[in-house]
Amino acid sequence: MPKIIPVVMCTGKGSGLWPAARDTMPKQFIPLFGRDSTFQRTLRLLSDTAVFEVPIVVVSAEHRFTVAEQLQTIGLRAEIVHEPSGHGAHSAAAIAAELGLARSQAALVGIFPADHIVQDGRLFVETCARAAAVAAQGRIVAIGIPPSHPATGYGYIRPGAEIGEGARGVEDVAARPDAVLAARYLSDGYLWNSGNVVFDAATMQARVQAPATGVIGSATTEANFGIRMLEADGFAGLPAVPAQSASPECADTAAVIAGHFGWSDVGDWSAVWQFSDKGKDGNVVQGRGYVLDGANNLVRSEEAVVAVVGLDDVAVIATRDAILVTPKAKADKVKDVVALVAAGREPEAASHREIHRPWGKYLSVDLDERHQVKRITVKPNGVLSLQKHHHRAEHWVVVRGTAQVTRDDETILVHENEAIYLPIGCVHRMANPGKIPLEIIEVQVGSYLGEDDIIRIEDIYQRC
Amino acid sequence: MPKIIPVVMCTGKGSGLWPAARDTMPKQFIPLFGRDSTFQRTLRLLSDTAVFEVPIVVVSAEHRFTVAEQLQTIGLRAEIVHEPSGHGAHSAAAIAAELGLARSQAALVGIFPADHIVQDGRLFVETCARAAAVAAQGRIVAIGIPPSHPATGYGYIRPGAEIGEGARGVEDVAARPDAVLAARYLSDGYLWNSGNVVFDAATMQARVQAPATGVIGSATTEANFGIRMLEADGFAGLPAVPAQSASPECADTAAVIAGHFGWSDVGDWSAVWQFSDKGKDGNVVQGRGYVLDGANNLVRSEEAVVAVVGLDDVAVIATRDAILVTPKAKADKVKDVVALVAAGREPEAASHREIHRPWGKYLSVDLDERHQVKRITVKPNGVLSLQKHHHRAEHWVVVRGTAQVTRDDETILVHENEAIYLPIGCVHRMANPGKIPLEIIEVQVGSYLGEDDIIRIEDIYQRC
Repeated sequence: MPKIIPVVMCTGKGSGLWPAARDTMPKQFIPLFGRDSTFQRTLRLLSDTAVFEVPIVVVSAEHRFTVAEQLQTIGLRAEIVHEPSGHGAHSAAAIAAELGLARSQAALVGIFPADHIVQDGRLFVETCARAAAVAAQGRIVAIGIPPSHPATGYGYIRPGAEIGEGARGVEDVAARPDAVLAARYLSDGYLWNSGNVVFDAATMQARVQAPATGVIGSATTEANFGIRMLEADGFAGLPAVPAQSASPECADTAAVIAGHFGWSDVGDWSAVWQFSDKGKDGNVVQGRGYVLDGANNLVRSEEAVVAVVGLDDVAVIATRDAILVTPKAKADKVKDVVALVAAGREPEAASHREIHRPWGKYLSVDLDERHQVKRITVKPNGVLSLQKHHHRAEHWVVVRGTAQVTRDDETILVHENEAIYLPIGCVHRMANPGKIPLEIIEVQVGSYLGEDDIIRIEDIYQRC
Repeated sequence: MPKIIPVVMCTGKGSGLWPAARDTMPKQFIPLFGRDSTFQRTLRLLSDTAVFEVPIVVVSAEHRFTVAEQLQTIGLRAEIVHEPSGHGAHSAAAIAAELGLARSQAALVGIFPADHIVQDGRLFVETCARAAAVAAQGRIVAIGIPPSHPATGYGYIRPGAEIGEGARGVEDVAARPDAVLAARYLSDGYLWNSGNVVFDAATMQARVQAPATGVIGSATTEANFGIRMLEADGFAGLPAVPAQSASPECADTAAVIAGHFGWSDVGDWSAVWQFSDKGKDGNVVQGRGYVLDGANNLVRSEEAVVAVVGLDDVAVIATRDAILVTPKAKADKVKDVVALVAAGREPEAASHREIHRPWGKYLSVDLDERHQVKRITVKPNGVLSLQKHHHRAEHWVVVRGTAQVTRDDETILVHENEAIYLPIGCVHRMANPGKIPLEIIEVQVGSYLGEDDIIRIEDIYQRC
């Protein structure tokens, strides 16, 4: 039985889940259900070595360390392929075929979006195994989902005659319909197009008429993560067609297999409510939330206590610095309000206050005209870049762990409850030589505090 | 023409306006409309020296410095009378009469709640002047408000025959009615009982049968504020009757005068919306708020950006650490949800993250198990208590101004962008000897970080 090489597409933004998801931490990396992100949940699904090879994760360069960190956290292996600016209009099918063929000329490949949710993992794997058997016969096999309602947010596939393994041929592939057409699709037995597709790599490459470009550039093994990262050159040369076209369109090679495992692309907060365990009166409360006299609400809070009184069927999403309130039924308009917030030049439209870096993360906790306070967490063995600033001095107070600080010609160990001063213009670097995370309170003082006043002199993560 | 001694009652909590109002900063001190608090707006109304004497502000001891600070900010004078624990059940009328008589045996006194809003200040002052003229004839004069709707949250007064100056006698004084009764009151020509009352102090003292107790204790002039503060001994000896009974009840001495100045007791967020200037589609936005596809909402945010999509007639109130979402029509249930939050042992039910002190204020910006970061602001000439801690060391970084730091036997000037370390157990004090506010980032490191690990050795504000 041939195994599937999963190609996990990790390049979306998911602005329907603002303010939790933003450019600086897209939807697939956010824990929406429990502790794991949907990316981590997807990788767990694909960890059954009887059916899947080691996955390949395709991600834009800026988020490659987030992928590495989230893999490390759940203890799973994958190859990371990153590209300068997201694959944009390039065909996911062409990319996946190319990556699969780079491993083996006989590769069976599966495209698996990283931002979906599957309820029954065992059934998902079984379905993939059957899809693999059909794909091995030269078919491009889409996984279709029996619709629970006439959704207008999904494409549709009409199954044809049975072809074995529970798969059917394909009679029609349709883009997202309006409500009337969606209702007709339901009565005509169409399935939702989930975007999960399994195929023989060589067959697909021929189908999309993609040249074998050898897009993969240099490979590096990243410090801190021990993960092989492959740098792609923007997938230049691959067909510029929407990812949508990964779906089968030619009757002779296409197949569809129905997945009964419970699925959603989690496009908006309404779906998060739908797939979460409900508490009293159908309310879903994530974090410190209280509902009085209200039912079927989603209340999610990162930090603040949230009280909802006398409302039904709303979503209240509170992050540290941005809050969304909407009826679940209008959750699909969130993208529009993000545009409105962006038009108001609010940084929260795109940026989080907590920023992840290969060495750890930082959180801005206080900001004024002439000072900023950050809480910085450095992983064991994490090393910040060697850097200097033109406009600010920094005071570092170690509140947990031990810091190894380079300051011009000195190297100093700074222990818990000790502080060190870094005057304007000094060349400095912080590292965590210890076994536990290092936590630092950084107080910046100066006339300009922007992130672009960092002159990087040396960086172990190749960021300068 | 006799002038009124205003007695401004500043002892309420206003939990209907949670999460902006909490025990640590009650409703009357919160800026609900523009920059001023309702307390400050009230004091401005009472600053017309043709009609009013210097006001007396009655406040619980813990908020006396807030009163002093808010007076200082608007540049108005008042006497502050503070008492250990709020006047509770003691009659506001008895307290006001006592305080008025302490100034003059012929005192005309007015009771003015600090947490109301008046739209037409000129008309308010004119109404008070007419009330004073009637009160000088030995009447207890309530200011009644022509009702705009059958409110169930106010008491009612039925006016009787005209007695001059636009005043009328009183035929009935009624407690808060139910909706049916309220509608009948409206058709019977009742007025809302606003709680603003003007009377001759001696007449009132006789009416409430209060002994002249001499409740006022020692007077102090507070450092930093130059305001005379009088310490009351809990108003012991005064009648324990609800403040409500300040309203006239005896036909022979009672009068009511209609106030057409536009008034509300701002009991909940619905009233804040009602009395605020409306933007597009009737939305009121205070702070960084965005409304898409919604009308007649109140969106108020202290810090975070708030986006409301597809909702009408709701209030979204976002403070740094607590958020409320409710239809305006159910805003009167906020007290119940505060009880729910309190039952969940959430400190935000009663405490703000920013705490005001006589020397300035502090804001907790980051808190974890073994460290806390505070932003401390010290006014010019402000002096913190001389203190020590058993469980924490502190690192102070001056980010604005100059600090005079006492550390055991040393006195050290710490300038902007300098830091100082205070080891566990050292006796220390911070003062601002300068002309501009001093701002400090304090990083606490230790095994216990509670506010009760402050051993005060000396304090210029008599707090130890």
